[in-house]
Amino acid sequence: MFDKIEHIGIAVKDMAVSKNLFSLLLNQEPYKEEAVSSENVNTVFFQTGESKIELLEAISSESAIAKFIEKKGEGIHHIAFAVKDILYEVDRLKSEGFVFINETPKQGADNKLVVFLHPKSSNSVLIELCQER
Amino acid sequence: MFDKIEHIGIAVKDMAVSKNLFSLLLNQEPYKEEAVSSENVNTVFFQTGESKIELLEAISSESAIAKFIEKKGEGIHHIAFAVKDILYEVDRLKSEGFVFINETPKQGADNKLVVFLHPKSSNSVLIELCQER
Repeated sequence: MFDKIEHIGIAVKDMAVSKNLFSLLLNQEPYKEEAVSSENVNTVFFQTGESKIELLEAISSESAIAKFIEKKGEGIHHIAFAVKDILYEVDRLKSEGFVFINETPKQGADNKLVVFLHPKSSNSVLIELCQER
Repeated sequence: MFDKIEHIGIAVKDMAVSKNLFSLLLNQEPYKEEAVSSENVNTVFFQTGESKIELLEAISSESAIAKFIEKKGEGIHHIAFAVKDILYEVDRLKSEGFVFINETPKQGADNKLVVFLHPKSSNSVLIELCQER
């Protein structure tokens, strides 16, 4: 079983505008801002209970976020679940027929090891699994 | 500040298929199934940490879920935040310029009072606020 919703990723066009908007909505300031160069994104994090809201802005047209916004517009991009043993979960889900975008964990934002399941095998929902390093 | 992510709502075409898929994904059975006739939906709930995953299937073409799927296909439909005082949050957010679909709380699934913010004022994210009755 997954431990919790670690975060919800939201694709935004203009981080300055969206950071202000979510600060007003959530009635708090973000606790962290981090550029993830391997993914070509800027990220801003808010804490809500045990979960985070992660805003994602593309810093290159090569970024998956740029492509997502071009195709679908701004909005919810993915759900990330925290897991204790990411390799165990990858094996378990593969054996159940789930398809991964990357099945070898890679370094994600916020010092996590992450894998992504392909939306085509998970009800058109992009799902990330992440394990604290 | 909101208390937590109460749930993430996911629009599905065929509840039997998606219930099975999310049972495998989350490695658990749903803890509740509930028809919400006022919204013309069937719902199935899974618990993950302090938050829930709510699957939503339309039971009428008039349902917002049917219209969402027609326009965008299956996928993440909304994020719901738990709040202690829903009327206070409605007033606060209105004064900040946020727009509501319904600003008078109504009965939602899972014995909650709920309001929805319009995605046009919240970065194309449909946001629900809910207060335990």
